[in-house]
Order: sequence, then C-alpha cells, then structure tokens
Amino acid sequence: MSEKIYIGVDLGGTAIKVGICNEEGQLLHTYEGPTETEKGAETIVNNIERYVRLIVEQSPFEWEQVAGVGAGVAGFTNVREGIIILAPNVGLRDLHIREILEERLGKSIKIDNDANVAALGEAWGGAGKGVDNCVCYTLGTGVGGGIIIDGKIYQGFSGLAGELGHMAVVPDLEAIQCGCGQMGCLETVSSATGIIRMAKDAVARGERTSLALVENIMAKDVFDAAKAGDETAIRIVNRAAFYLGKSLAAVAVVLNPELFIIGGGVSKAGDILFDEVRNVFAKHTPEPVQKGLKIVPASLGNDAGMVGAAGLFLRS
Amino acid sequence: MSEKIYIGVDLGGTAIKVGICNEEGQLLHTYEGPTETEKGAETIVNNIERYVRLIVEQSPFEWEQVAGVGAGVAGFTNVREGIIILAPNVGLRDLHIREILEERLGKSIKIDNDANVAALGEAWGGAGKGVDNCVCYTLGTGVGGGIIIDGKIYQGFSGLAGELGHMAVVPDLEAIQCGCGQMGCLETVSSATGIIRMAKDAVARGERTSLALVENIMAKDVFDAAKAGDETAIRIVNRAAFYLGKSLAAVAVVLNPELFIIGGGVSKAGDILFDEVRNVFAKHTPEPVQKGLKIVPASLGNDAGMVGAAGLFLRS
Repeated sequence: MSEKIYIGVDLGGTAIKVGICNEEGQLLHTYEGPTETEKGAETIVNNIERYVRLIVEQSPFEWEQVAGVGAGVAGFTNVREGIIILAPNVGLRDLHIREILEERLGKSIKIDNDANVAALGEAWGGAGKGVDNCVCYTLGTGVGGGIIIDGKIYQGFSGLAGELGHMAVVPDLEAIQCGCGQMGCLETVSSATGIIRMAKDAVARGERTSLALVENIMAKDVFDAAKAGDETAIRIVNRAAFYLGKSLAAVAVVLNPELFIIGGGVSKAGDILFDEVRNVFAKHTPEPVQKGLKIVPASLGNDAGMVGAAGLFLRS
Repeated sequence: MSEKIYIGVDLGGTAIKVGICNEEGQLLHTYEGPTETEKGAETIVNNIERYVRLIVEQSPFEWEQVAGVGAGVAGFTNVREGIIILAPNVGLRDLHIREILEERLGKSIKIDNDANVAALGEAWGGAGKGVDNCVCYTLGTGVGGGIIIDGKIYQGFSGLAGELGHMAVVPDLEAIQCGCGQMGCLETVSSATGIIRMAKDAVARGERTSLALVENIMAKDVFDAAKAGDETAIRIVNRAAFYLGKSLAAVAVVLNPELFIIGGGVSKAGDILFDEVRNVFAKHTPEPVQKGLKIVPASLGNDAGMVGAAGLFLRS
C-alpha cells in the first residue's frame, strides 16, 4: 500500500478539524477535537499534533503514506515563511507554526488563511472540480475570497489577493464604515453581519415587517421572512445580492473566470439570493465575459477548509 | 554573433510598426510603413512580411537570429489558434494570421490584442521592468487593460481577462450606455471619448466654461482648461479620475498587484489626473493592500505595442 495521503487541518477558534484526502481531493476520514484556545499556543500546537497522529492511527493508512500536512487558519498568515501573524479568534500571534509542526511531525507543513484554503478546497474537490480558473466567495460573519488560477491559490504581491470582502462597492452616499476602517466594503452589506444590521435598522426605523417580532435576528430569519413575502426582508436580501452581483461583475472583467463559487452561511439562502445575484451580474457584465461562466453554490460546506488545507500540497 | 532577437509588429489601422528587441526587452530598431487597410487582407499581410524582412536587412542582425515574430492587433484575437477574429479598424476578420505568416517567414509567430501586448511591453521593457505582477490601463479612444501575472499576460478562461474598460463602475442612476451595450462602463467616463462627451455636454448645457470657445474639443483641451483653473474642466477630469481610481481599488483587492501602469493619450494629462486617481484609490482600498503598491504612468508611449509583441516569445 503505497498510495500517498494528504492531511488538512482546519484550525478554528472552537474546534480543530482534521481530514485525510487522497490525490483526487476526496475527503476519506475526518477527526474533530477542541482547540482549547483559552489554554494558549503550546496546548493548541499539542492538540494539532495529537489529532493528526490520532486520525492516521484510526485510519487504514500508515504514517509513512502522509505526504504532508496543510493548515488553514482564520487570520493573517505569512504563507512563504509559514507563520501565523495574527489569528484573533484562535488567540495566536507570530507563531512559526510550520517550523514547530515540521519538527514535531517530521512531515512537510504548509499553511494559508481560511478563505484561500476554502477556495482551494472547493476548486480541488468541490464545486470547482475540473475547473482551472475560479473565484470563491465565502459569505459568513465577514466576506472572504479566494482566487484560483491554473488550479492554484493566487497570492498576489503581498499575499492579499482575493480580499473580496473589502471591495468598495457601496456608493459613498449610502456607505457605512467596515470593520477594516474603510467605507462601503462588500462585507458591510453581503455578510451575515451586514444582513442582520440592515434588518435591525429596518426594525428600529419602525418598518412594518415580520422581523420586528423576532427577538435576536439572524441572517436565516431574514431569508425566511423574504421567502414568506416580507417586503422589508426581500429588500434587504436584494441589496445584499445587488452588491455581491456588482462585485462579481468587477471580478469577471479582471479575471475572466470560468466559475464563481459562493459559499458560507449566507449562501444557504439559496435561490432567493442566487437568482438576484445572477440577474445583477448579467446586467453589469459584458456578454462575451458571461459566455460559459457559471455562478454556483459551494458544495463542501464546512469541509472545504480541511480539503483545501490538504490540497496545499498538490495545488500551491 | 549568435544573440537572439525578437520582432514585434504593431498592426494598426493606419500604420504597421515593426521593432527589434533584444532579450531584455530593449527596443533596438524600428520601422514604420502604411497598413494600406483599404487594399484588403492580402496586401496587409504582404506589407507585414515586407516590413519585417526590411527591418532585419537594415539592421546589423542576421535573419537566423530572429527567434520569433509577435504581433499585436487592435481587435478580438484567438491567441491559441493565432487567428484575428475581428479587427474593425484594420478591416480584418477571421484571418489565420499565424499560419500564413509562419509559412511566409519561416519563423514562429504569436499574436495577441493591442491592450494585452501594450501591457506586456510596459511590464517587460517599460514602467514595469523588474515587477512580476502588474496591471496596465490604456486610456485612449476606449479603455483597454492587461493583467500581468508572473511576468506573463493573463488570458483567463476565454481570453478576455483584463477587459478593464468594461467594468461597470458608474452607479446606475448616472450611467450612460457604452459602445459594448452595457451601462456605466469605465470607458464611458475615463476614456478620451468619455472626457470629450462630458465636455460637450457641459457646453451644451450652457455652463460657464472656457471650453465653450473651443471649436472641436479634444481631451487635451479639457486638461489644459483644468490646469488653467476652469471649474467645469476640473470637475470633468476629477470625474474621470474618480471612476478610474474606483476601478483600480476593485482590481487591487482582487489581484493585490505591485504596480498599476496607466498609459494612453489621456494619461498625458499628468499630475492633474494622477493625483486625483491616487487620492480616490487611497480612500477606497484597504491599507494593507496599498502597502508597497505604486501607480505610475506608462513609459514607452506608442512603442509599448512593438515591445510587447516582441515579448510574446519570452513572456507568454
């Protein structure tokens, strides 16, 4: 048995998810354990090591078959040096994780940020399988992005390519400030946070909406209300879709991709969101650039991070 | 003498410009002759062949030193197949130019469109020398774009990457229709054509502006008036700069380039344009993405096409 396997680690604030992939990007085994963020960097690193060894022991594979271990981290990473610069949710800063894990595991290690790794996961083993050039959006608390060129993550000049959540798409007059300090970022309207804010604002303004009866509004409540015909909710979903569609249109003339993959919690809204995104995109993109291009939902869900992290070895 | 040389052909509606470059992208010799568009494809091809042979004869190089001949064409090209699909200004359609020229010249031939080739010229031997990842805008009659990744032209899924003139940057409410059929393209405001249109509209509206005295307004008149303090002209230049800056900001979060190169006739406006573009860009781009990034004027002027066409051999 000499088949090579690739291990992907999705390092989050609550859980560390570890997966084993084959060369085709198929997720064969998974293991999930607590991060124990509160116990600090030493414990977190110990946990990663332990879970990686555990998953291989529990699998039919031998340790020798492990070609490498990749890790995706929610935060800023220095991909070349293998350093976690700042991962606020995991409580890590300036951690030379590649060096440390290579010594402990005796395997080659690669890291990248969660948005890039999720994009690669979808491109390698998910909705983008077989496609060379695609762009992924992850609509969650924020809006993350990843650019896949020739099957690989495109990093750009300083590793910041694909910061799609911070495209300034909202016109100055109706822009609000983003967490990044800039005005009018896509993230302010098309993330779960943005949708919830718009819903709360509407309720506070006294709009006649079923959302006024919801105690702690979540993005899903807004989608459910929109599906039920609530006009305020429909307007909010359309606004999130409008700026997302405009952003896709801008990306399309730059990169001329074959595929847009939209993932993250907000993408679960389904047709009510996708129909409008496709509408807006069609209206703002030259026809030749639209030809053959598809806009599809992500297919791996929460597994994208593990798959993409494993993929760092074949696809970076 | 065994040094290799690279020949670049800039095929325009009026003139065919041919240049010889060395391996460093330095333009050593040039030759320019009429296209004779009105005489049809056969004559145009004959002219290209003749000018290419002529320039080598007149140079100190031997025919054997020619490593290849590249051509840039204003129009739609099929790069892979070496076909000019449609070049309206040159009067060519469905011309298998690679096949024809390879047979006639006995040399390897490559083609691409004028915007891509100009971008490569600047990246290889102009303002982008030494930079791996840059994005070029050519502000002329229209707005062209070219994306350079790892020193090479990035084509995208169907060869349409870098169609930056057709980014829909103008909000729907103030958008006008572009030649491409779409509303609000960058080209409608930041091209020479767009600037002239805005100036004529202002005069037609009866605005108090020195431009009212100009008989046949050109973009340069608008820049001169703006430099002299004419408020209408300043507003027009700022509007062209505003949407150009917004477009740069959108490209920056997608590609995280090291350099933006702005060329074409409109770029000759100089500081009055560049200062405002840099201002708008700084306001609409996340700080980390701005770090180390420069926005500079193109340096090769009308030679960019020849240099880039020659560069197709080392850089594509």
